[in-house]
This record gives sequence, structure tokens and C-alpha cells, in this order.
Amino acid sequence: MNSYEVRLVRVQSELAIDGVDGMILAGTDQMRYLTGWQECGHERFVGLLIPAVGDPAFLVPAMNVAQARETPAGMESVIGWDDATGWREAARTIVGAWGSAARILVDDEMRSGHLLALQEMFPETRFRAASGLMRRLREIKDAAELEAMRRAAQMIDEVFEAVAIQLYTGATELEVAEMVVGEIRVRGSRPSFSPLICFGPNSALPHHHTGDRRLAPGDVVIIDIGCVADGYASDITRTVGYCEPSDPDARALYDLVFRAHHAARDLARPEVTPEAVDAAARNLIAAAGYGERFLHRTGHGIGLSVHEPPDIVKGGTAPLKPGTCFSIEPGVYLPGRFGVRIENIVTVTCDGVASLNAEPDPELRVLPART
Amino acid sequence: MNSYEVRLVRVQSELAIDGVDGMILAGTDQMRYLTGWQECGHERFVGLLIPAVGDPAFLVPAMNVAQARETPAGMESVIGWDDATGWREAARTIVGAWGSAARILVDDEMRSGHLLALQEMFPETRFRAASGLMRRLREIKDAAELEAMRRAAQMIDEVFEAVAIQLYTGATELEVAEMVVGEIRVRGSRPSFSPLICFGPNSALPHHHTGDRRLAPGDVVIIDIGCVADGYASDITRTVGYCEPSDPDARALYDLVFRAHHAARDLARPEVTPEAVDAAARNLIAAAGYGERFLHRTGHGIGLSVHEPPDIVKGGTAPLKPGTCFSIEPGVYLPGRFGVRIENIVTVTCDGVASLNAEPDPELRVLPART
Repeated sequence: MNSYEVRLVRVQSELAIDGVDGMILAGTDQMRYLTGWQECGHERFVGLLIPAVGDPAFLVPAMNVAQARETPAGMESVIGWDDATGWREAARTIVGAWGSAARILVDDEMRSGHLLALQEMFPETRFRAASGLMRRLREIKDAAELEAMRRAAQMIDEVFEAVAIQLYTGATELEVAEMVVGEIRVRGSRPSFSPLICFGPNSALPHHHTGDRRLAPGDVVIIDIGCVADGYASDITRTVGYCEPSDPDARALYDLVFRAHHAARDLARPEVTPEAVDAAARNLIAAAGYGERFLHRTGHGIGLSVHEPPDIVKGGTAPLKPGTCFSIEPGVYLPGRFGVRIENIVTVTCDGVASLNAEPDPELRVLPART
Repeated sequence: MNSYEVRLVRVQSELAIDGVDGMILAGTDQMRYLTGWQECGHERFVGLLIPAVGDPAFLVPAMNVAQARETPAGMESVIGWDDATGWREAARTIVGAWGSAARILVDDEMRSGHLLALQEMFPETRFRAASGLMRRLREIKDAAELEAMRRAAQMIDEVFEAVAIQLYTGATELEVAEMVVGEIRVRGSRPSFSPLICFGPNSALPHHHTGDRRLAPGDVVIIDIGCVADGYASDITRTVGYCEPSDPDARALYDLVFRAHHAARDLARPEVTPEAVDAAARNLIAAAGYGERFLHRTGHGIGLSVHEPPDIVKGGTAPLKPGTCFSIEPGVYLPGRFGVRIENIVTVTCDGVASLNAEPDPELRVLPART
């Protein structure tokens, strides 16, 4: 059996352990984890239908049948539906065979429109989220997965260094994003998410939309980028000054966030909870008076998905385990002025965490102006 | 009132007409239509909560509050939730005020994980899909929307012509996709979807994943691309030969698909049904013996979303109305050999349809080899 076949067997035994009758995954990273293939399908239903007992089946648009037959999971049952007849009758037959009052897990990322249709078809069935079960399979990375993550991490470190020396006065955020994509592509990879490039006051928006602002001396710059190796994602954030920042607090805030980043790193190890790791970073920032300006969780799990469990946040009480990979990315944001975020990906080892990325600068890096 | 404020008023009156108590939209094009802003949020809940009566509210991650306050819809009620406390308590309060056994519409593109959480919070509430109501608002484009769609269409026509003359022997599909993105960007736009570039036998896969195959003389090439103007999408498909196609049936199949494309165009007008338009193209292809190889609907609505209602397919029985925009894109796919698809966007006028795109070549265009 190849690794996908093993995963399919394992997921069926987990379904049985949970006492559920089956699972319906959409064309997401969940499907990719189990079959090596994904196809979002947009408004078209793409499903991997896995009974607790029996053969899993793909139910996909007719135009994707050829691709579904060729996945490394080698699944024999591939049912195509066409636009004229729709997907519902085939789903009714396959899922209906799982029992009239079945308990079924559904992909958290399935479109609600599809779930509502399934609920209408099977009013007696109890649908619940598949994320808990899938997390048990995906959270702990094996050696091959870790190797892919390490390569993705090293590649994005190189991309950051390559882009940092190309920044120039007047470049727009979108132009820098294109530089990032170009540097990723020449390394044979692709972005794991759209590069997030923030100049000056835009760095105070953690989910700023990369736009047309032009780089000027004195700007604080946040670069949040990632790429992919063998399907596994990287994700780093670096904060730099383009020339000495015009805001006199930039260096001190960088120092604070850097210390918070390491406080979280120093605490993380097996059996420590995500919320304790979060608190390690957060308490330090709060003690400096910026607790209200740390607007997000300290980190997120990462693997095939850029964001996956576990969240490093208050309420995260399931202890960390060796092989789990997650980001540590505290940030402080001063509206209208600037922000600082420092993000590395770490993996839990037997006695701590190891960073997959190069170490962030211990002091704010200041880039020289270029024209 | 600006156009977004007008739309919000109208949606509330539609909610009352439908006898529902409210609607919950995710950070999708539905939200963009009503507020001029969207933010997918990924795993984080981003909601536009619209009661049938009363003030709509944004419920967004804390880090998106500043953006939600600045939308052109000028909504006053913006509630941020942070990663530590989560979104559920705020949703419980706001949506709970809509009644204990409310009828609520939800965005078809909301993540199922979020819908399942809402269903758990409100076990007495009936959730249904919002797509029907939203379609009534969005399907008929006004003059400003049509103008944006026309500009997006003309721009992508130019991009196709610019790329066609740059194709060269040995270029990979991904390299051509990058050419497309570059040509789109220099025109101040962005892609409306990832360019779909298919060389040779890959053209027989309607949803091929653009990859590393290299262009060779004799290849049939399918280029399916789109861009955006003022938020509105374009989407065209052109099939060309790179040199005279090595497959002797390429020219005849092009001719067949071209005639099917025009058969659908000729029939479409107000009061005609989408399924009749689909049949016009499909019957012609079926009569030539390729019915089984026309793997998808004849077209899809387009506007703020690349794919939106109405589908041009069997079962589409709601008559077309002036101002509706949709694609006409019959295709025939011969596995292992090649495929042909010809797609223009049209808008329904008072007595027919007008194409927003330049006319496709009446005969297969053959590009000269370049090195």
C-alpha cells in the first residue's frame, strides 16, 4: 500500500472508533491528504465519500473523472455527474446506503450550499464537522512531511533575502509581491498564499490587502510570504525598516515583539498547551502596555494547509505533541503608524521546538535606500 | 444614499417579501455586492448579518475591524471578535435577537464548519441557502455594471491577442500563464481566475491544471482567461493551432464548436430559457456524434463572480431577462487527443444578446511557430 492507501485505511478505522457511519470531504486539503488530489470545483460538488465500512468513492463533475481516476490513492470507485443531471441523485444513492439515520462527518470547508442540500436529502442524518477526526490524522507530521516542510521553509527564507535587497524607493506593494512570486517561481515552487506586503501605516493592518502604496524612506515594511514544497506550505513574516524608520518607537517595538516571539519559542515543548504558548508571548506584550494592540492568536498549525489546527491561542488546551508544526507570530499594531510581526514555523521535538526557518534578526534590520 | 446603501435597503425588503427573519453572508462576493468589501477570513468567521428589520451588522475578526468600518456601505455596526474569545458569543447575541425559531438565509459559500456551529447554537432555526434571493438582486446588471463588464471583456480580448503572438516552441503552460498575468497587470487589472492554459492532449481536459508541458508545433492550444474591471469579471476561451494541428480532425471539430457557439447565441433572447440555449448548442454537437464529449454546461452567469447564476444548462427554466450576462462556451473533448472550446460573454438585450467580447475566429486560427 502507498501512503495514501494507508491513510484511507486509517481514516476508516478512526470513523469506526468515533462511531460515525461515514465522512464526506470536499475538494480541499482534506481530500488532498487522503488521495493526493484536490479540485475545488467552485460551485460544482466535488466529494470524497468514505463509509466507515466499504469502499470510498469519488463523486466529481464529469469533466474531472479522468483526473480522479489517476490519483495516487488508486480509488476504483469514481462516479462522474454531469451539469444536466446534477450530483444529488448519485449522492442520494451512495450516502443513502450508509443508513437512514446515519451520523456523518462533513468537511468544514465544504460550501454551505452543498451541506444544506445534503441535509435536505437526509433529514434524519446528523451531520458534524470532520475537522476533529482529520486533525488526529494530520497534526503529527511524519519524516517525509517534515522534510518537505523544511525545504519549503528554507526556500521562503531565501526568497525573503533575495527580495529584501531588491526593494527600491517608489516600488508599490503589488510590485514587491510580484518580485516575491518571481523569486518563488525561479526556485520551482509556487506561493502558498498571496504575498502580504505592507508599507508604512499599512503595516498596522494585520490583514492588509497588498495594494498600490509606494515605498518611501522611513517606512516600516512587513513582508508575510510562503511557498510550497511537495504540497507542504511555508509561511514567514519579517519586519524591516526601509532606511531608519521615521517613527521613533519602531526599534523598541521590534525588540518587544522579538522577545515575545522567543518567549513563546522557549516555552513550547511536548505536553505544554497551545494556550500556554500564546500566553507566554501575550503576557510579555501586555506587560509593556500593548496587550490591546496584539490583535490575533500567537500562531496556527501548518502543513498541507497554510492554516490548520492547532491554533496557538487561549482555549487551546490539547497538549502539543512531537511532530506538530505551527507558526509563532506575535504582532503589535499601532493604527495609523506602523506594526511589527515576526513569524517563524517551528516543529515540536522531544524536548522543545526546532525552527524550520532561519532566525529572525535580533534587532530591526534597516535596509539602505535604493532608487 | 450610495448604491451600496440602496442595495442593503433592497435586500431587507426582499427578506421581508420572502418571509425570512434575516440573512448571514460570509466574506464572499455576496458581501462585496452589498458593501463593496470582502474578506474571506479563511478559517475565521467573517459575517454580514442582515435582519429583515433593523440595522445590519458586520461581525469580523478584530484585525479586520478597521477595514469593515471603511466600506462604502458605511455600516455603523461593526463588531470585532478576537481569537481568544471567538465569534460564537457575539453571533449568539445578534442572531438570537432575530427570534427563537427564526428562518435564516445563509451564504451558499459559507464554510460548512461555520454553518454547523450556527445550527448547533440555534437548533430551532431553519437555515436555507441565500442564493435564490441574492440572484434576484445580482442577475440583472445596471448600466455601471455593464460598463465595467465591457471594459473587463475588452481588456481580456487584448490580452489574448498580445499573448497569442508571443507563444513560442518549448514554452510551458505555466510560462504562458505568467505571460497572461503580466499582460493583465500592465493594463492595470488582475486575473479573475488562474489562467487555464492547455497544450496538445491537455486541451482534452476541460479543468486541466496548468502545468509544465511544453508547447510543440502541431499542438491544439486552449487559452481560458479572465480579468477584472471595477470588480467585475471577464472570461474568454480561445482555441488555436500552434502551427497546423497534427490531429486531422482539429479543423472540423473547431468548425462544429463554432457553429454550436453561434447556435446558442442566435437563440438567446429575453423569455428564452437557459436550457433552451443549452440545447441549441448541445443538439448540434450531438447530431455530429459528439454529444458524449461535450462534458459541461453551455455557460454560466458572470458579474462580480466569475461563475454565478444563471447556469445555461438543462433544468434552467427561469427565462432570461435583459441585463443578464453569461458565458456561451460549448466544448468538445477527445481524450488523449485534443479539445476545442469557444467562449464569449454575452449580455441579454431587448431582442437578443450582445457579445461583450470580440468575435472568435470563424476558422481555427493557426499561429506560426516561433523559437
